[in-house]
Amino acid sequence: MSAKWEEVALAKRRAVSANIPADWLIPQLLLPSPAELDVTQFPRKSGWFTPRELDITDSTATAILCKIAGGTWSAEEVTRSFCKRAAAAQQLTNCLSEIFFAEAIESAKILDENFRKTGKVVGPLHGLPISLKDNFNVVGRDSTVGFTSLVGQPATYNSTLVELLEAQGAVRYCKTNVPTAMMIAESVNNVYGRTTNPLNRKLTSGGSSGGESALIAFGGSPLGVGTDIGGSLRIPAACTGIFTLRPSFGRFPTQRCRSGLAGQEAVQSVNGPMSKTLGDIVLFAKTVVDAQPWLQDPKCLPIPWRSVEKKKKKLKLAVLWDDGMVAPTPPVARALRETVEKLNKAGHEILDWNPTLHSQGLDILGRMFVADGGKSVRALLDPTAEPFRPEMSQYENAPERSVHDMWQLHLERSEFQRKYLEQWMSYGGLDAILSPTTPYASVEHGNFKHVGYTGVFNIVDYSAVSFPCGVTADREKDAASLNAAPLSNTCKEVQQDCK
Amino acid sequence: MSAKWEEVALAKRRAVSANIPADWLIPQLLLPSPAELDVTQFPRKSGWFTPRELDITDSTATAILCKIAGGTWSAEEVTRSFCKRAAAAQQLTNCLSEIFFAEAIESAKILDENFRKTGKVVGPLHGLPISLKDNFNVVGRDSTVGFTSLVGQPATYNSTLVELLEAQGAVRYCKTNVPTAMMIAESVNNVYGRTTNPLNRKLTSGGSSGGESALIAFGGSPLGVGTDIGGSLRIPAACTGIFTLRPSFGRFPTQRCRSGLAGQEAVQSVNGPMSKTLGDIVLFAKTVVDAQPWLQDPKCLPIPWRSVEKKKKKLKLAVLWDDGMVAPTPPVARALRETVEKLNKAGHEILDWNPTLHSQGLDILGRMFVADGGKSVRALLDPTAEPFRPEMSQYENAPERSVHDMWQLHLERSEFQRKYLEQWMSYGGLDAILSPTTPYASVEHGNFKHVGYTGVFNIVDYSAVSFPCGVTADREKDAASLNAAPLSNTCKEVQQDCK
Repeated sequence: MSAKWEEVALAKRRAVSANIPADWLIPQLLLPSPAELDVTQFPRKSGWFTPRELDITDSTATAILCKIAGGTWSAEEVTRSFCKRAAAAQQLTNCLSEIFFAEAIESAKILDENFRKTGKVVGPLHGLPISLKDNFNVVGRDSTVGFTSLVGQPATYNSTLVELLEAQGAVRYCKTNVPTAMMIAESVNNVYGRTTNPLNRKLTSGGSSGGESALIAFGGSPLGVGTDIGGSLRIPAACTGIFTLRPSFGRFPTQRCRSGLAGQEAVQSVNGPMSKTLGDIVLFAKTVVDAQPWLQDPKCLPIPWRSVEKKKKKLKLAVLWDDGMVAPTPPVARALRETVEKLNKAGHEILDWNPTLHSQGLDILGRMFVADGGKSVRALLDPTAEPFRPEMSQYENAPERSVHDMWQLHLERSEFQRKYLEQWMSYGGLDAILSPTTPYASVEHGNFKHVGYTGVFNIVDYSAVSFPCGVTADREKDAASLNAAPLSNTCKEVQQDCK
Repeated sequence: MSAKWEEVALAKRRAVSANIPADWLIPQLLLPSPAELDVTQFPRKSGWFTPRELDITDSTATAILCKIAGGTWSAEEVTRSFCKRAAAAQQLTNCLSEIFFAEAIESAKILDENFRKTGKVVGPLHGLPISLKDNFNVVGRDSTVGFTSLVGQPATYNSTLVELLEAQGAVRYCKTNVPTAMMIAESVNNVYGRTTNPLNRKLTSGGSSGGESALIAFGGSPLGVGTDIGGSLRIPAACTGIFTLRPSFGRFPTQRCRSGLAGQEAVQSVNGPMSKTLGDIVLFAKTVVDAQPWLQDPKCLPIPWRSVEKKKKKLKLAVLWDDGMVAPTPPVARALRETVEKLNKAGHEILDWNPTLHSQGLDILGRMFVADGGKSVRALLDPTAEPFRPEMSQYENAPERSVHDMWQLHLERSEFQRKYLEQWMSYGGLDAILSPTTPYASVEHGNFKHVGYTGVFNIVDYSAVSFPCGVTADREKDAASLNAAPLSNTCKEVQQDCK
């Protein structure tokens, strides 16, 4: 008989903690108090890291690879440095779900040995530690995606992307926390609990790739991989001020990953890189595409890497000022305004994007997620009698659709996609839509209420980059615009939450 | 209140006949008797066609375009010639569902006028008549896909591909018959009845694009467009000895076409060209891709036309001698043997393809088609109280699946796709699988029993060409191999049907 879910969860959390070597447990004297909200300065200010450890872990992935390939740093010391900083991230933000530092260091040693013998790197990611969202399968490790019933069921195969990255020289060293089933916009579940934002631990690091975003924002990973079906890469990136790319489906391999809604295909989950720099996003994307993933994952498209040949001097951009449902909160609205001003000054053409279609897109997305009446989620809760989390009430209460109903929903989605492309083409030569990623800079735990800005682009399956624009929240500057008329009840709640 | 389905069907058939101008009704004296089975020689031997009409309609699409662009032939005379020959095809094989010759001739005149004025063609298909399978929407025309309930409901928009072809200069002049819902491997329905094979009218021209194959094999169209979800392009091509290409999904636009199972996406329907020559298949494919269909249909992939740069001198081919379910009948088995011998002599590497996975693939396909418990088909039969055709009994009797069940079937299909690609990759540099298209050369009406050779490639979504290999059935030569042990009960029935 299964243990009760609380016991399973407690044991699992203890097991994860036990995987942190004693040397990398933060000494009590140095440990920030829970009242210290911004912990991003801990590595530099605590004195607990050596200058070289800081030098390594503050470097971009691209710079690290250059140093390893040049023989300046070994894969082993790079890996050790990131393991130590990831251990600190875990102790301060609860961002990890699986820790396998010892194996990572062994892998790095093998890479170093190989480099010494051949003078060559095994691939473009030689020696780079890459963190993985919990749903990537790694042989011998759990992929619980936040369900206690999946604790103690180690994977018997690797996800295709995991194999691909390792073949290019990447070192895997940890997996990162997610919300239950990866279907909440914050990272909280009944196994590992809640991940916090290292910039302000009262706030969420977003979800569902919020373990990744917390880890990367803290400096515990130079490059991580998350997934996105409604905003799960972009929301955590926006909440922590890092970069991500949500590609269209078929660009990066998704084969053999764990899903919370396995077999759901009306809207496709994709995966993508998360990092502090755009250059590292490009590094990841080019490396994965150059590895020809379509030879391993039949859902990948045989489209080689394409460089932008002639860079246009003048871009045509359409701005989604609000999505007609929930207005961006003042700091986000200001960030958008300031960005548009800069783009205007730089000579780009700026137009407005009409948001009329967006509410329909979000509505379609919501119906797709719960089309099985929550059966997939329930099947993962039942074995340990784990309760539905309150954020998942729509899965608990949805009626199951029939296949015929589902086919009608597919038709509705296809017609939506057609209309959205028609709108895009009506601009003639449009280069991009510029939009808030979320209404929030970030938000207090439990308050994330609207995924419309991201989810609509999952329905149309457009590639999307979420990027920090250099603007941060400022109570004084943002106070002025607090009282705009709300667009909806949710909009009103969002405004109140953020006062 | 709706008329009874028989009355609706009768009226529709009369309306189609009435669209044939009196001049193009075959004189009674020339009309082949029903006992004349091969009518392909009628155009040349009847004396009813002028030498110039024969010259035009016996030319390839590529040659026709060259003659029009050079000013030798006008678009109008080309169109008139094909309209006349298509009218004959209709009278001899019942292959058309919609006839709009008068509008076609008007379109051709406008193209000619334009050419006279500018000295230029409007696009690479300038003046070429292209026939369309019934499910392509053309404004003002029915797309019944064989249902009486859809008679008298003319389309209010054109299919995306129809618009694209017209923009490239193509002339639309007729639509072609299909089976009910396009889900039978022969072309028979309760509206238009049965299309016969011009090579032998006792036999089927295949389905579901069997109106197209009959029309093209008769010479009534230089190039046509069909669709394929389980073999619907390849089976009719094989039954009539012409070429076709079933592309992978996303290559050619499928947007705004009629489907018999609207919204079904577990296996995707695709469309492709049918023609008497491989060159014309390439012409169509390159023209469609060069028109950048992804700017109109969001499901199309932005992959430009790619020429084969270095042609390999030695190909690596795997032969599927039989699919483990139904052995090819003697003429098909001989055609495969003779083709393999030629390829061997030409220096290509020939290996065997292990068919172990195929029965599972066909089983998955069958379950997908009926996943809605036949509701989509029933919804199209009910308004006119039209009965299920006997070939559609699986749709009549299937239980409807729930969405959760469907998601499990998606997982099964994805795992199948993974295993199939794994098998492909295990050969190292495999160029193609060589396989029968169907167990039959063709078969008597009502006897088509197995779509396994085509359907499995829909499940894995590989591009596939069906081509005539120059071998035809020969009672004497094929008698020897008649008594091989059957692989299954269906195999036994197929062997008996073909004796």
